[in-house]
Amino acid sequence: MEKVTFGTKTIVGRDQVLNDMCTAIRQTTAKYQTNGTLLGVGIGLPGIIDMKTGMMRESPNLPGWADYPVRAEIEKRMNTPVILENDANCAALGEKWLGAGRHVGDMLMLTLGTGVGGGIVIGGKIHHGMSGMAGEFGHMTVEPEGNPCGCGNRGCLEQYSSATAVVRMAREAIAAGEAPGLKKAASSDVEFSAKEIYNLAIQGDEGAQKIFRRAGRALGIALATLINGLNLEMYVIGGGVSSAWEAFAPSIFEELRQRSMVWAATAPVDPLATPSGASAQVESVGGQHTIITRALLGSDAGLYGAARLPIQRGT
Amino acid sequence: MEKVTFGTKTIVGRDQVLNDMCTAIRQTTAKYQTNGTLLGVGIGLPGIIDMKTGMMRESPNLPGWADYPVRAEIEKRMNTPVILENDANCAALGEKWLGAGRHVGDMLMLTLGTGVGGGIVIGGKIHHGMSGMAGEFGHMTVEPEGNPCGCGNRGCLEQYSSATAVVRMAREAIAAGEAPGLKKAASSDVEFSAKEIYNLAIQGDEGAQKIFRRAGRALGIALATLINGLNLEMYVIGGGVSSAWEAFAPSIFEELRQRSMVWAATAPVDPLATPSGASAQVESVGGQHTIITRALLGSDAGLYGAARLPIQRGT
Repeated sequence: MEKVTFGTKTIVGRDQVLNDMCTAIRQTTAKYQTNGTLLGVGIGLPGIIDMKTGMMRESPNLPGWADYPVRAEIEKRMNTPVILENDANCAALGEKWLGAGRHVGDMLMLTLGTGVGGGIVIGGKIHHGMSGMAGEFGHMTVEPEGNPCGCGNRGCLEQYSSATAVVRMAREAIAAGEAPGLKKAASSDVEFSAKEIYNLAIQGDEGAQKIFRRAGRALGIALATLINGLNLEMYVIGGGVSSAWEAFAPSIFEELRQRSMVWAATAPVDPLATPSGASAQVESVGGQHTIITRALLGSDAGLYGAARLPIQRGT
Repeated sequence: MEKVTFGTKTIVGRDQVLNDMCTAIRQTTAKYQTNGTLLGVGIGLPGIIDMKTGMMRESPNLPGWADYPVRAEIEKRMNTPVILENDANCAALGEKWLGAGRHVGDMLMLTLGTGVGGGIVIGGKIHHGMSGMAGEFGHMTVEPEGNPCGCGNRGCLEQYSSATAVVRMAREAIAAGEAPGLKKAASSDVEFSAKEIYNLAIQGDEGAQKIFRRAGRALGIALATLINGLNLEMYVIGGGVSSAWEAFAPSIFEELRQRSMVWAATAPVDPLATPSGASAQVESVGGQHTIITRALLGSDAGLYGAARLPIQRGT
């Protein structure tokens, strides 16, 4: 496996990004041409993909990409099959193939980043749903009268468990005069981030710890519903905020004990004893326990998942 | 198709119920022996089934059935394969095979009865999950600090949308002095039921209508999460309380418009125009719209679903 990274900014425009991508694919293909055949190209994109037309329906983070024939254009240039996939789905497939879920059956993944994304892998393949929109777990309602969300709902999971939400909740706590430690940190730093709030939490700052308990509680409410409804073998938590696992995971399990009868019937003896996922996988072979664990592949999960797409189609 | 009904009360005990069932199966098989072969016996049971051992894990409504080898015992007596299935899963499979979902792809069903049950049908088959416990949608959290539920959680869907909940909410409204119409009905009737509260609602009683709006709101919160997460083609509402469709369905769609971005992207022009499900199915062919509709088979859905089990295994 080889990873090629390049720094094209999306602001230079769609055509430049496509050019750079195609050049990188061509160079990598040429380099390995004696080692095998190019099965195709898998591409993870941030947004909702129309699987039939190979276009993005909406692309708030990639201006100019919506309603442009991305798949057809790259297929024409590269003369190889191209598969587009939502980036959160790619991450879930990557963790299933080579990460936390590699030894288990069906699983889903929550990616805690700027927002909260998700993907379900059933029978080794992404569950797309009717129109490719399945996995929008970031917009599950966890507080019916909670914080307003850009999607039009109130109390969505991503209003409590995303990096954006962690910073917002910290600023709210500062404004309410409840968090002197956070206030000090925020005033001394122009880039007051979820990472910094986590650093305060592990140093014992009560205000910061409270923020992550709230993030964990929202995740617990959402996971209880998912576990009761889907009874999957594994639920993987990834994305930048998952680095703060120690600060929010105990609150997840507190909620689950109360809120999920399926969890109560299938929980491992010590769910927190398996933060790396390593022993969780061993324990879970045979589908006896519901495992909730951290992602293992970091930001590479999406790359692995995208690479898996043409391989999977070939089988 | 033939339906044989008999009135064995579960109170006479497990062995008597099993005897009566086996006698009925024997008689029906004998009657049709020149018309075909017995593929097997499908049985719907109220409780969690261990698919591997063919036993019920818990059976609050069938005393003495838990941890008894139901499948093995009937197979021994009848000399034919027996498949046990949870009754809500059977209902979902029945509606998929011959009811509201017969022309659509993947679907799920919520059964609003004494409690709220559920079942998911993906690829024409029940999604069981890791240990046969999938579909417990009645215990989705719709109000994190809501009414306590027997499962240990608070604010479960079935605390608002089951027949039991409708009566409880009515009694709460009476106790709070908010519902004179309900109070009058309750005092004149020893069997104050969800059906009677519905009758008051269609007669225009505001107190009764409010109860069903609350039931619809809880269903809307739950369905928004399911639609965002699973993006299925159809969501079927069945069970006794679904007879009150007109009283609670508008509240479902009100919630969905606000709470589900996937619904917003896939809703039919007039979701309420299709209460019978007939035109909904036509509209939904091709998977363009998310359809939420009433069940069509009433209390027979579970029978059809159970009958489908041995046919499905034979294919």
